[in-house]
Amino acid sequence: MKNVIVLNRGKEENSLPSKMKVAYLQGPSEVSVGQEDVPEVSGKDVLIKVMAVGICGSDIHYYTHGRIGQRMVQYPHIQGHECAGVVVATGSQVTRFKVGDRVAIEPGVTCQACRWCKEGRYNLCPDVQFLSTPPVKGAFVQYLKHREDFLFPIADTLSFENATLAEPLSVGLHAVRRGGLQPGASVVISGMGPVGLMTVIAAKAFGAKEIIVSDMEPLRLEIARKLGATKTIHIATANLAEAVEKSTFGLGVDMVLETSGNVKALQSSIELTKRGGTIVVIGFPAKEEVPLNVTLMLQKEIDLCSVYRYTNTYPLAISILESLGNQVGHVITDRYAIDEIQEAMNQAANNQSGSLKVMVFPN
Amino acid sequence: MKNVIVLNRGKEENSLPSKMKVAYLQGPSEVSVGQEDVPEVSGKDVLIKVMAVGICGSDIHYYTHGRIGQRMVQYPHIQGHECAGVVVATGSQVTRFKVGDRVAIEPGVTCQACRWCKEGRYNLCPDVQFLSTPPVKGAFVQYLKHREDFLFPIADTLSFENATLAEPLSVGLHAVRRGGLQPGASVVISGMGPVGLMTVIAAKAFGAKEIIVSDMEPLRLEIARKLGATKTIHIATANLAEAVEKSTFGLGVDMVLETSGNVKALQSSIELTKRGGTIVVIGFPAKEEVPLNVTLMLQKEIDLCSVYRYTNTYPLAISILESLGNQVGHVITDRYAIDEIQEAMNQAANNQSGSLKVMVFPN
Amino acid sequence: MKNVIVLNRGKEENSLPSKMKVAYLQGPSEVSVGQEDVPEVSGKDVLIKVMAVGICGSDIHYYTHGRIGQRMVQYPHIQGHECAGVVVATGSQVTRFKVGDRVAIEPGVTCQACRWCKEGRYNLCPDVQFLSTPPVKGAFVQYLKHREDFLFPIADTLSFENATLAEPLSVGLHAVRRGGLQPGASVVISGMGPVGLMTVIAAKAFGAKEIIVSDMEPLRLEIARKLGATKTIHIATANLAEAVEKSTFGLGVDMVLETSGNVKALQSSIELTKRGGTIVVIGFPAKEEVPLNVTLMLQKEIDLCSVYRYTNTYPLAISILESLGNQVGHVITDRYAIDEIQEAMNQAANNQSGSLKVMVFPN
Amino acid sequence: MKNVIVLNRGKEENSLPSKMKVAYLQGPSEVSVGQEDVPEVSGKDVLIKVMAVGICGSDIHYYTHGRIGQRMVQYPHIQGHECAGVVVATGSQVTRFKVGDRVAIEPGVTCQACRWCKEGRYNLCPDVQFLSTPPVKGAFVQYLKHREDFLFPIADTLSFENATLAEPLSVGLHAVRRGGLQPGASVVISGMGPVGLMTVIAAKAFGAKEIIVSDMEPLRLEIARKLGATKTIHIATANLAEAVEKSTFGLGVDMVLETSGNVKALQSSIELTKRGGTIVVIGFPAKEEVPLNVTLMLQKEIDLCSVYRYTNTYPLAISILESLGNQVGHVITDRYAIDEIQEAMNQAANNQSGSLKVMVFPN
Repeated sequence: MKNVIVLNRGKEENSLPSKMKVAYLQGPSEVSVGQEDVPEVSGKDVLIKVMAVGICGSDIHYYTHGRIGQRMVQYPHIQGHECAGVVVATGSQVTRFKVGDRVAIEPGVTCQACRWCKEGRYNLCPDVQFLSTPPVKGAFVQYLKHREDFLFPIADTLSFENATLAEPLSVGLHAVRRGGLQPGASVVISGMGPVGLMTVIAAKAFGAKEIIVSDMEPLRLEIARKLGATKTIHIATANLAEAVEKSTFGLGVDMVLETSGNVKALQSSIELTKRGGTIVVIGFPAKEEVPLNVTLMLQKEIDLCSVYRYTNTYPLAISILESLGNQVGHVITDRYAIDEIQEAMNQAANNQSGSLKVMVFPN
Repeated sequence: MKNVIVLNRGKEENSLPSKMKVAYLQGPSEVSVGQEDVPEVSGKDVLIKVMAVGICGSDIHYYTHGRIGQRMVQYPHIQGHECAGVVVATGSQVTRFKVGDRVAIEPGVTCQACRWCKEGRYNLCPDVQFLSTPPVKGAFVQYLKHREDFLFPIADTLSFENATLAEPLSVGLHAVRRGGLQPGASVVISGMGPVGLMTVIAAKAFGAKEIIVSDMEPLRLEIARKLGATKTIHIATANLAEAVEKSTFGLGVDMVLETSGNVKALQSSIELTKRGGTIVVIGFPAKEEVPLNVTLMLQKEIDLCSVYRYTNTYPLAISILESLGNQVGHVITDRYAIDEIQEAMNQAANNQSGSLKVMVFPN
Repeated sequence: MKNVIVLNRGKEENSLPSKMKVAYLQGPSEVSVGQEDVPEVSGKDVLIKVMAVGICGSDIHYYTHGRIGQRMVQYPHIQGHECAGVVVATGSQVTRFKVGDRVAIEPGVTCQACRWCKEGRYNLCPDVQFLSTPPVKGAFVQYLKHREDFLFPIADTLSFENATLAEPLSVGLHAVRRGGLQPGASVVISGMGPVGLMTVIAAKAFGAKEIIVSDMEPLRLEIARKLGATKTIHIATANLAEAVEKSTFGLGVDMVLETSGNVKALQSSIELTKRGGTIVVIGFPAKEEVPLNVTLMLQKEIDLCSVYRYTNTYPLAISILESLGNQVGHVITDRYAIDEIQEAMNQAANNQSGSLKVMVFPN
Repeated sequence: MKNVIVLNRGKEENSLPSKMKVAYLQGPSEVSVGQEDVPEVSGKDVLIKVMAVGICGSDIHYYTHGRIGQRMVQYPHIQGHECAGVVVATGSQVTRFKVGDRVAIEPGVTCQACRWCKEGRYNLCPDVQFLSTPPVKGAFVQYLKHREDFLFPIADTLSFENATLAEPLSVGLHAVRRGGLQPGASVVISGMGPVGLMTVIAAKAFGAKEIIVSDMEPLRLEIARKLGATKTIHIATANLAEAVEKSTFGLGVDMVLETSGNVKALQSSIELTKRGGTIVVIGFPAKEEVPLNVTLMLQKEIDLCSVYRYTNTYPLAISILESLGNQVGHVITDRYAIDEIQEAMNQAANNQSGSLKVMVFPN
């Protein structure tokens, strides 16, 4: 066996335009489409024609509030980080891709040299350049420059819009991997927004036997069932604790994966988890501080595991998406051209019950 | 959530016969059916009416040669350890089962107190009493006494004969768990006897993406494909190394699981494994000593992981078998009553190409 | 190599008294000495002449309040679970000990058969019988019956009183092991009561390079330094966060081990921990619920690891205590005969600043 | 807490010579000193004045045989990779070092972008540039250019020659870490050459309780004892298996670390290891293929763990060397100026019994 794959060493470019459309965030809830030069690439960078960009919950938060915690938007800003496209040019040191390759884009480009990068936890790299996280610009552009080690080939059978789901699915995969989910496990996943739904897929891929999910929106629960949830709990009308008690003969589940950010959901997860089980916190809680029953956690020796983005998940995420085919498309509810970006953002921001993933097509 | 399930605390017995049939191994390749008293149970022991017993490769080895390594049969001996049945009586301290429960039987009853038992590696317990491993008697009986913590409930939908497969499947599950198989992995499984086939199921349950299998017998490869193998290599006519090279772009697979006992299969596994990958050795090699290319192992930092029986696998094995339904039945090729035990053993011992799992029904 | 050590198979008994002294907890803060029959032993049980018993923080809590959480004392009760002694009689199935052996006593005797026992996490056994935890009686007796698999031989050079420290040291060892402390790590240990001090020893045994400790009592900090702390922070007069910032060049420590139960100590541990680090919670917090900055935990991907008692720690704890010699004796500040039990309990309960471990000698 | 340390952002250079001495390997066992231009640095590269270089066993092998396995020297070649020195110039993007900093040099500079680099196993990077491994030139030069992320600051109290031991100590640390050595463990380390001796230090740092070592040379065993070995076995006159049997009450050790490359040492390690234990292979065996008793490995469920170089060990290695002070100096037996390089290499190659680590000082 050899040790490296050199797919191609190309610098070819086909005829590219010199200008491209860009969606600018101009102020809170205000976007407009402008124009910029198409970037030039050199070294290990690749130029990608962006074919699809999903709108993420964090995009919406920045869009509406202009900040997440300490991190503030500097206007004008460019959003978008769940993206996929086609290679149209390659720098001289690029060895893995050639013009025409279809790729999913992992948005965080790391320093490669800090202790976290070297230890394989590059999601914690303090110098990461993450698309759309201020002040780094994002993917609501027609052409994007990205370092080749954060691009991943996708099969022709995987649509660009489905390929963008590799990003939220990565969050779910990182969560179940960090939490140590074992085949045969029983899990609760609270919150069936796009990340919650992708976590259902991740839990199933890791062999979870029982996947109990909860949300306020019947539509989301319905999609969750299609993606692999074995029991759906409509929080407004059913009792999650009772369902868990019944399903686990009173023992509690092996793992709770909290994606909703709901304070009560996180608090009650301690009760739902079995002795020696694990709680994985994925969703940033609505309040910075959450009162937790640490006493009960100790008595049951429950670990609380935090999840921040992901590492080394893209090949697996893509492989899962390829195998799921159109099944995963249920998650994408709305589609817009880049010229309709204001409408797209508003739809994502305001239609919580009807919309799930809103997709923007820059080209 | 509570912490224990007390299903029942029963000592009831329905009317049991006082005598039962037993299959004795009287000498090399010589079995006969005799009679013994039905055992009485007390304490934590349960009496099970044995409904199905699979014949294992180790049974055949003892049957033919009268020994495995240092361990010698003392005639008359009782064989059989892959078994399932129905609870017919319970000792006074039994809390988990009641008469009528259908169960799979984990054959090794441990001391519960040595360092290995306490550390969760009870397969290494030096005082384990393992059904059919001399001098402990086995399951070719109509009624079997067994401690309750090594019995596991099975669904009504799972047939007894399929439930006996929890034993070889446990070997496969222990192997992929010890080896640390991750979802998305590529694996080679060499040898498609019953353990190899069960390892295919185990690898799939752990999320393996590519499962390349090899054997000499086309029938076995065909069944492997039905159980989840993505590529089958008929050793006599195709080249495994080339197939791996092609499937992995020259990198090698993440894991090789060797079940055949073939010396060359084990030796070549080093070549097939990628840098940083793992070889899991399941099948006892045909020769005690195997020359291995340790130099290449070091250069690729490949770990060689040994597998001896299993621990804490039965609930997962049963859950997988329940979900597979009749699909797993392909593995069972021959069925005999206990009175036909000689014929059953001969079929298992001599018909390598046509038979896979041979099943005996004591009742 | 063989696989088991059979030290002896003895049932000998030397002449034992028929009656023994027992210290009864009669009501809140009220103890008295009474008399009971010396227990008889059979099966796998061993009779130990109890030579030393340390008073634990949980003993004091039950003594003062009559309860911990839901668990209530039923008077009269017998306290004490940190103990060591000499074997004076053995049941007929005892194989590991003989009369005259000196032993440390692991107080929790498990069911050996539940999923947690089988998986090596026997501290979570729902049926554990833990000395002195109501309704199980404890070690403030002259003779104690205990199952042999929870007894561990100690060297002649290890005093009985030092051997009792194997219990709190086990808590510290379980904590650093669960938290995954790696050699070279920097840690903060908050709270220098006996468990905190034992955690200093545990962290050092696991190779921690920098051990920063905090407490309100200068005496405890002084002892911590003797046991291996590299920096001591007197909370009343110095700033722990500043000390950590300085020691770690602003990165935070790899691990915080919280033993004090102080709510603020637990809350601030998130700030003190580096990106990707771990917080291990050992001390039950003063309030059941603790508001935690989960947002910051997520941003830094910090895991919170719970510790409940310990598993498989005694051989290591004893080996460490044997190697430390008299150095560990600094922790023992007060010594009483069993007849002085009321005074002993009061000293332990009331003299927080002057006393650390209070020791009772039943014989 | 902040997240990065910026020690300095300097490009200063003090007055450097334009030429430097270099030791060329001209053919088998033939070296000579020549002259080259002092390298210029840019980007993230640092120029180091090399103060000490240790001669490694692999250096000797290339020196004598002109090759290791498939890898052939192309003459003239420059050897040496265990090195330390002082920063004399920094590229414009260097942020961690400034002129005057004393550093240990990790010799393998990685690609930072392959799957192994990203997963934290950068020792398996197929594109690594490792000092002195053909065709990459080594450290027998007066000035060396190296990327900053593979330089590590050392305390003023650590001598340059002792700092070079961070390299072989890294091998030992990687070995005990990969093998999962736990505090309290018993280990055998076979072979007390420099790597074996460093593995003694590593095992002690990880908390090994019993460290049994073996070698043919009494001098090496004597040094091993000074570094922490608890029992030394002179292979010519004593029996290792008996010593292990006695020390472990017949159970075998938790881990064998094989550094000698001796085929029999590796073969017998299976016998020496306890049930469920681990063998870590560090030394390349004298023969490519080694016949191993795989049957016994399976029966005892022993894992064989391979070690190739190291990852993320330098900070820990340096911290250990700093704490050991002159104690570690016993390993360095011979010292030469770069002009005496032929003599140095011959001494290292020929004086197996008297010499351990031979040190060369280029400046």
